[in-house]
Amino acid sequence: VEQAMNSMNTLEAAPGLIGVLGGMGPLATVDFMQKLIAATALANGAHRDQDHVPVVVSSIPQIPDRVAAFRGEGISPLAAMVSSGQRLINAGAGLIVVPCNTAHLWFAELEAALQAPMLHLVDAALEDAASGMQAGANLGLLCTDATLASGLYQTRAAQSEKYAAVHWTLPTASEMLTLVVPGIQAVKLGQLDQARDLLSEAAKALVRRGAGSLVLGCTEIPLVLNSASNQFQVPVVDATASLARRAVTWSLAQRQLVLA
Amino acid sequence: VEQAMNSMNTLEAAPGLIGVLGGMGPLATVDFMQKLIAATALANGAHRDQDHVPVVVSSIPQIPDRVAAFRGEGISPLAAMVSSGQRLINAGAGLIVVPCNTAHLWFAELEAALQAPMLHLVDAALEDAASGMQAGANLGLLCTDATLASGLYQTRAAQSEKYAAVHWTLPTASEMLTLVVPGIQAVKLGQLDQARDLLSEAAKALVRRGAGSLVLGCTEIPLVLNSASNQFQVPVVDATASLARRAVTWSLAQRQLVLA
Repeated sequence: VEQAMNSMNTLEAAPGLIGVLGGMGPLATVDFMQKLIAATALANGAHRDQDHVPVVVSSIPQIPDRVAAFRGEGISPLAAMVSSGQRLINAGAGLIVVPCNTAHLWFAELEAALQAPMLHLVDAALEDAASGMQAGANLGLLCTDATLASGLYQTRAAQSEKYAAVHWTLPTASEMLTLVVPGIQAVKLGQLDQARDLLSEAAKALVRRGAGSLVLGCTEIPLVLNSASNQFQVPVVDATASLARRAVTWSLAQRQLVLA
Repeated sequence: VEQAMNSMNTLEAAPGLIGVLGGMGPLATVDFMQKLIAATALANGAHRDQDHVPVVVSSIPQIPDRVAAFRGEGISPLAAMVSSGQRLINAGAGLIVVPCNTAHLWFAELEAALQAPMLHLVDAALEDAASGMQAGANLGLLCTDATLASGLYQTRAAQSEKYAAVHWTLPTASEMLTLVVPGIQAVKLGQLDQARDLLSEAAKALVRRGAGSLVLGCTEIPLVLNSASNQFQVPVVDATASLARRAVTWSLAQRQLVLA
């Protein structure tokens, strides 16, 4: 215990240190880190290593499966997420972000347990989807069956007047079964070509039924679909990138406060 | 302090938790994490998130420039590296790895300060370069000017009888100035196409002068050159991947010990 205290005492302050509660899955965490680097380069030019934001990451893939837990077929991931968040706080993180949409079903409990500042992934994605949104905008949502069935996005949108007029275009049960769920699974297996085919098909179906924008509401999906390729003729909102941009904004502002 | 103690006490044990002391640079850290995932998939199949190894990462790009410090033009990175390593220990890491070749100039001091198990990147790369190596093997080395001028690889090899017969083919001063140094710099600026051209040219020059294998001895280099493309007609040893494979082996063995 004394050794532990000593190490806590010798930890230097690192202004703007972002804590990433990751591993859900591990490739999505890597994608989020890449998006932090890209967002920083856009924000400040980043000519040297030293211009980039400081990050600590706890990527613990042993966190119990979120979708299975929601379905009632597995234990809750909450305790393991709290423990992983605690590692980040011990490492000096001043903000916690969780690059996994489904994990946000436990966001309120996690925030209460960690008592640390956090950013909500769905808020970040909704804000980006809404910027320049027409009244009565039609948002297509690609996500896990737990995110879909729980109404995570729809409920969060309904809590704010800003999104009152949003109409959601959602995958059908058949599209979830044959395209979206196996597509996300293929990403986790590293079968990226197959994943791309399945998820593109699902995205096109949403556009055919009227979606004016596509929200990629599962952090595995932007590993194979992205806004740059824009093969869907509609704007694509990558929730992972939305969260990364806001985390970078927070970090740069914190460091500015210290330098000022 | 009491709060700090409490949080230390509530930290769950995570067998096989790899600590990555990163940010030198941030993209090289992301590349290392990808290689941990790939090495795990090769080692155990990895059908689910939960099959992957647990990792904590401290990616602090504010660590002072290693090359400038070696040259006597900047402050030592040691204190910042020790502080970053301490974050990983506080987060529960059982092993520390540093995906930056030049940082290994301070390896002995870092290991003494952290008093934690560490793996040496250069040992990992030399082992892979030596497997199947002929007597009198000729290794081409691409690295920063600090790694080159310090003799980091050559000295480490000279300390072991296994590598006694190794012959090194090194970039000339002119190749360092016009190809290798600007190539590494271009990676850090995110100008990957330009970096690939410069570093490929440097690699081809080593092969022309007799290198029978190429050691990519700077973690920025495999971001643009890789063994898979094998455009150089000789084996390529990616030091980042060598370190990742050994970290995964350590982690899987630790978890086996706990499950047994």
